[in-house]
Amino acid sequence: MTSTTTSPPAPLRVAMIGHAFMGAAHSHAWRSAHRFFDLPLLPVMQVVVGRDAGRAGHAAEQFGWAESATDWRAVVERDDVDLVDICTPGNTHRDIALAALAAGKHVLCEKPLANSVAEAEEMTAAAEAARAQGTYAMCGFTYRRVPALSLARELVAEGRLGTIRQVRAQYLQDWLSDADAPLTWRMDKSLAGSGSLGDIGAHVIDATQWITGQSITGVSALLETFVTSRPVAGQASGLGGAGDASGERGPVDVDDAAWFTARFEGGAVGSFEATRFALGRKNAIRIEINGTDGSLAFDFEDMNVLNFFDGTQPSRVQGFTRIYVTEPDHPYTGAWWPPGHGLGYEHGFTHQVVDLVRAIGADEQPTPSFADALAVQRVLDAVERSAGDRSTWTGV
Amino acid sequence: MTSTTTSPPAPLRVAMIGHAFMGAAHSHAWRSAHRFFDLPLLPVMQVVVGRDAGRAGHAAEQFGWAESATDWRAVVERDDVDLVDICTPGNTHRDIALAALAAGKHVLCEKPLANSVAEAEEMTAAAEAARAQGTYAMCGFTYRRVPALSLARELVAEGRLGTIRQVRAQYLQDWLSDADAPLTWRMDKSLAGSGSLGDIGAHVIDATQWITGQSITGVSALLETFVTSRPVAGQASGLGGAGDASGERGPVDVDDAAWFTARFEGGAVGSFEATRFALGRKNAIRIEINGTDGSLAFDFEDMNVLNFFDGTQPSRVQGFTRIYVTEPDHPYTGAWWPPGHGLGYEHGFTHQVVDLVRAIGADEQPTPSFADALAVQRVLDAVERSAGDRSTWTGV
Amino acid sequence: MTSTTTSPPAPLRVAMIGHAFMGAAHSHAWRSAHRFFDLPLLPVMQVVVGRDAGRAGHAAEQFGWAESATDWRAVVERDDVDLVDICTPGNTHRDIALAALAAGKHVLCEKPLANSVAEAEEMTAAAEAARAQGTYAMCGFTYRRVPALSLARELVAEGRLGTIRQVRAQYLQDWLSDADAPLTWRMDKSLAGSGSLGDIGAHVIDATQWITGQSITGVSALLETFVTSRPVAGQASGLGGAGDASGERGPVDVDDAAWFTARFEGGAVGSFEATRFALGRKNAIRIEINGTDGSLAFDFEDMNVLNFFDGTQPSRVQGFTRIYVTEPDHPYTGAWWPPGHGLGYEHGFTHQVVDLVRAIGADEQPTPSFADALAVQRVLDAVERSAGDRSTWTGV
Amino acid sequence: MTSTTTSPPAPLRVAMIGHAFMGAAHSHAWRSAHRFFDLPLLPVMQVVVGRDAGRAGHAAEQFGWAESATDWRAVVERDDVDLVDICTPGNTHRDIALAALAAGKHVLCEKPLANSVAEAEEMTAAAEAARAQGTYAMCGFTYRRVPALSLARELVAEGRLGTIRQVRAQYLQDWLSDADAPLTWRMDKSLAGSGSLGDIGAHVIDATQWITGQSITGVSALLETFVTSRPVAGQASGLGGAGDASGERGPVDVDDAAWFTARFEGGAVGSFEATRFALGRKNAIRIEINGTDGSLAFDFEDMNVLNFFDGTQPSRVQGFTRIYVTEPDHPYTGAWWPPGHGLGYEHGFTHQVVDLVRAIGADEQPTPSFADALAVQRVLDAVERSAGDRSTWTGV
Repeated sequence: MTSTTTSPPAPLRVAMIGHAFMGAAHSHAWRSAHRFFDLPLLPVMQVVVGRDAGRAGHAAEQFGWAESATDWRAVVERDDVDLVDICTPGNTHRDIALAALAAGKHVLCEKPLANSVAEAEEMTAAAEAARAQGTYAMCGFTYRRVPALSLARELVAEGRLGTIRQVRAQYLQDWLSDADAPLTWRMDKSLAGSGSLGDIGAHVIDATQWITGQSITGVSALLETFVTSRPVAGQASGLGGAGDASGERGPVDVDDAAWFTARFEGGAVGSFEATRFALGRKNAIRIEINGTDGSLAFDFEDMNVLNFFDGTQPSRVQGFTRIYVTEPDHPYTGAWWPPGHGLGYEHGFTHQVVDLVRAIGADEQPTPSFADALAVQRVLDAVERSAGDRSTWTGV
Repeated sequence: MTSTTTSPPAPLRVAMIGHAFMGAAHSHAWRSAHRFFDLPLLPVMQVVVGRDAGRAGHAAEQFGWAESATDWRAVVERDDVDLVDICTPGNTHRDIALAALAAGKHVLCEKPLANSVAEAEEMTAAAEAARAQGTYAMCGFTYRRVPALSLARELVAEGRLGTIRQVRAQYLQDWLSDADAPLTWRMDKSLAGSGSLGDIGAHVIDATQWITGQSITGVSALLETFVTSRPVAGQASGLGGAGDASGERGPVDVDDAAWFTARFEGGAVGSFEATRFALGRKNAIRIEINGTDGSLAFDFEDMNVLNFFDGTQPSRVQGFTRIYVTEPDHPYTGAWWPPGHGLGYEHGFTHQVVDLVRAIGADEQPTPSFADALAVQRVLDAVERSAGDRSTWTGV
Repeated sequence: MTSTTTSPPAPLRVAMIGHAFMGAAHSHAWRSAHRFFDLPLLPVMQVVVGRDAGRAGHAAEQFGWAESATDWRAVVERDDVDLVDICTPGNTHRDIALAALAAGKHVLCEKPLANSVAEAEEMTAAAEAARAQGTYAMCGFTYRRVPALSLARELVAEGRLGTIRQVRAQYLQDWLSDADAPLTWRMDKSLAGSGSLGDIGAHVIDATQWITGQSITGVSALLETFVTSRPVAGQASGLGGAGDASGERGPVDVDDAAWFTARFEGGAVGSFEATRFALGRKNAIRIEINGTDGSLAFDFEDMNVLNFFDGTQPSRVQGFTRIYVTEPDHPYTGAWWPPGHGLGYEHGFTHQVVDLVRAIGADEQPTPSFADALAVQRVLDAVERSAGDRSTWTGV
Repeated sequence: MTSTTTSPPAPLRVAMIGHAFMGAAHSHAWRSAHRFFDLPLLPVMQVVVGRDAGRAGHAAEQFGWAESATDWRAVVERDDVDLVDICTPGNTHRDIALAALAAGKHVLCEKPLANSVAEAEEMTAAAEAARAQGTYAMCGFTYRRVPALSLARELVAEGRLGTIRQVRAQYLQDWLSDADAPLTWRMDKSLAGSGSLGDIGAHVIDATQWITGQSITGVSALLETFVTSRPVAGQASGLGGAGDASGERGPVDVDDAAWFTARFEGGAVGSFEATRFALGRKNAIRIEINGTDGSLAFDFEDMNVLNFFDGTQPSRVQGFTRIYVTEPDHPYTGAWWPPGHGLGYEHGFTHQVVDLVRAIGADEQPTPSFADALAVQRVLDAVERSAGDRSTWTGV
């Protein structure tokens, strides 16, 4: 937490588009990152944008943005904005990102990158063009920044697992388990692109490709919508809530759950599941990786822990070691509290800001790039194609 | 542990064919069942059969069989044998079972029932014919008799989970993770029928169909052989061991791991995995079931526990309840020790003997019947067909 | 996260004395509380005070205080300060608190309240006098604000545990396990008052008295110093660090670990342990409570979870329910993220600010009051007296 | 499971006195040990003794003893008995053991060894005299033979923990939590000697002294009887049951729970608890040991697991390793099933028979000897004296 900087860092002026769940998390990160980490640029929370002036104004006040606005097209052109942070539903990502990059602004875009491969390709091309101008784009797969998963990647990269053979990834939630939970934008394909697949499945696709350092080359998939219509009106609570079961119902046109097997380029085989119907599992991101020399197991419901099986130890003392990832030499954690004082969900967002600002300060490409996010999008697309073709094996 | 019987029960004279791993487990069960449970018939360990006279004799002495023999065909005809217990590799099940049933002997046959659907059908037909004569056949899916899984079935049957939506089943082992572990019969398709699929995948297919009370109707599958040749010579240890890496290698022609998604007749969707390559997992049979009203989670590596999520509780105190399945009113456990004094692997075999002997004593069909085992065999077959056809969805 | 307030809340101008570990945590809380919770007063981070001007200035910049100062006596008199937040070692608490209260400032004082019962009594008397003037004092036992422990108290208060019979409390750390970890103020009795006892034992004394609603009336205790001298120079890391083993050593005159049994006024019996030598345990605050109708179990190393055994359930489904305390109807959590998105260590501090500001806004006494903290101090004192008298039972 | 023995082993003819809970467990062990382990002598279950001829006869039949008898004095003199296995309440241990040893019989005596130090001393003297004649006595602290605890001792003995500093031992049950559970011999001081202290506290005293290799030298203790009278009549279930709450109540004159701190001869400090009132804990034997280089943690409710923290590993991968103690190179487990196929409660008794018979076969003293058990008895006595003297520190 010490700094030897003599002159204050230059500002990095941020405009955030959207101020719902992700907006709250991103705001906290922009407020907090430089309080715990040395950053080469000082984030300035310049303006928050929302469609409704009143609510945007309230968001500015609540989250700590200097001002609010309603027209994102005008904001991304402003001279006093250096970076555009896109926290809106997926159907708007392409337009905002392209405009921001064209205006020479760095971009942080929530995941999934877009609602189609075509959009993602266009965005990636724009990002690569912008990069040549020193303008950077990044996609918000924040779970990479959970310290335990960052450590997972390090251990794989160091060869502690040997050759990766199996990947097991599940993202289990239950907020749609109630058949009368209300219909929201997350169940509307035109807005969200897909259901559990793109919302949460995308996270474990990105995480496993990143941790293993291997791309998925083909899939066999199944999608299911358990509840095909839901109350139009209702009261939100968390991501779900209580719908008005007596009133009108609208159609759900996205998947409630998705499953697929996958082959990775290095020879590993993976099985994936994303669901909003695993009653009792709230945000269980479970990732297990088995190699020839070691294995890893993680569950976000115990997010400060990484379980590591070191197959090179004598069999008498082998076992999964519950690494409590809060030591000074673990990723990110040295900047926070003493060992054993765990972190929470929002810290991933703060770490995302740290890595993004450091990359911009160093004039380097932050990761995951739009190209990385496009790779995820292509897997999502292959999953949908396979599921639409009787689960037949489908190349990515 | 009390009995009101005045006259001693009639004997049930058992011949066991095969005396390796399963033979040891079955012998312990035949020795122990009547010591803890009231049985209508008294098991008598009449004869054990093995191909090698010396080893069979030693097995008799060690395991407590009155005598040994080498010719199973002769033994199954003996007048002083009432029940034939088949503990041999899958390629021999058909012949022994058919002969035993034809000779009017009850049969307990290890799983998988056979190495093909055709064999299993033949055996099932024979079993049904024999049943009309009061001769019963049962297949040894012993995990049904783990108290926690028996309780799981009870809770589902009582409606505590509501409508079942998702099934998640994994059987994870790692004894082939070493690429130089020796080649044994379990890796030879002509003897074992298949690899992880039939050996351990069959267990979770049976368990999930039994617990949910629903049959699997279709699958999409993937099979993989990670290590395609192994040392012919080596030293067994557990199921695996250390092969002679410097010597000759033979081909592995079965799957090392299997994955499939499945639809159940009642609308549930399941994902399955069976592997011998999940380094660090020794016998992790993980079964999770999500319904509209409740969920269950089990892991054999903590075999005395069933986790139950009761979705009808107030959300403030909801959570997975770690039921330590050792209470007097839990399945089987009242016959053993006081609460909290857990059971081990072999108890499932003892309970299997209990249920089998009680069914025979009551002149009722024991479960799982050969027909139940045939249903599993058909799923195994559909899995292999789908895996051979680019994972395309395949009816059972 | 919504507000119906039309006029902005009045400011609550804060001066924080001390800016080390606790200062960082308190600053984060002052920055964050109003971003997630509606508060009747708006915290303003007016000034941070430290002995060294340079370091205090740096702390102001890093933590977000408007200015810094070095003379706490002057600061607590300032007209533009409404509340004094004391984050210094225990030997200074009395003087600062008395001066602040005398100047009519609200006070938040870190725990333990003081280094002696006499000091704590004096502070409590001052707090009670101030309270009559509408000036409030509170002590920082933040673990009360971990949502899982807040829920624990609610369940006890609602009678879900019946009559409390047993309390089991351990606070296990290991940062002094290395005999060459450096000597710091926490091992100096003149500054810290005591060792593990007052530093961490105080937390579980307060937590258990608060959760059970019962005071401790007597104790039998043992204190131990395993390592009686340590390197004077060294490099801090977390709470411990690496001492210069080749250089001078100074004496440790506080306890490394403390144990005591206790009787609560309601008839419960408790056993307590506080240690900095439980190698492998980083911040394991374990609290278990057994009543006639239910039990609770908590471990801070899995801080978002409260395990609840409901003895009124049928024995067949009894067990410890792992309540993942992140639901909208759990204490504090509705203001943060959707269910399953867990919180971290610092959230307790944010909740402390919320409760304090709300109490001040409502002109009510915040808890824990200085009187509550004095009750803890008296237990600490009884523990030291018993330990000094051959563990003989000693009244509080 | 192989044997190279050519001639069959000589018989070891056993007489078992008492046939309740412990009798069932011992019988299973005598039946099973030679089925899984090579033994130098072949146990022969000669005769079981009980006060009631009918029940003893039934026990013989159920448990597999060749005959039954009612007069233990006659039985211990019989020529066809080589070993006397004492499974009766503590008040009878002295007389039976002395008579058996005097008759030249080996003795296995359930714990606690006796109901007083004086009795235990007398028994130990007799055992040491007998030993000179090649007659051996052993006390039944079976938890030593749980593989995970045997491994714990090995790791300590190998120095993997360095110097032991702290011991934390709890034995938690809840079968008396119901205030109307019936009065049984276990609550009668004249029969049982003490309550939770001798019944279950004795186990953790023995286990921790054995694992650490250190004797307890002094204690400070507290005993509590939460429920001072109970229904005389009732129906047993497990260890507890349902008493007739409407009928006569009798006094409980033993402790319901016991707590003590202890110093070990090597400098370690321990805290102990034994209780029958920890609602929700059925047989939770928790042992934690912290050394300078490593730590161990065990809980019998997950009995196949030993958690080992290796402090010599790099901090980045440090953590408690969940050793699943079922490998071929773990204590005892190689004789049973493949890795991952866990053991249960009764296996400790089987291992006890194995170790006893092997020691007798090798003409060596089995452990724990009566002297070892006397050491436990002296700790029990010191605990009672301290508890009776206001918890004042009391030497053992």
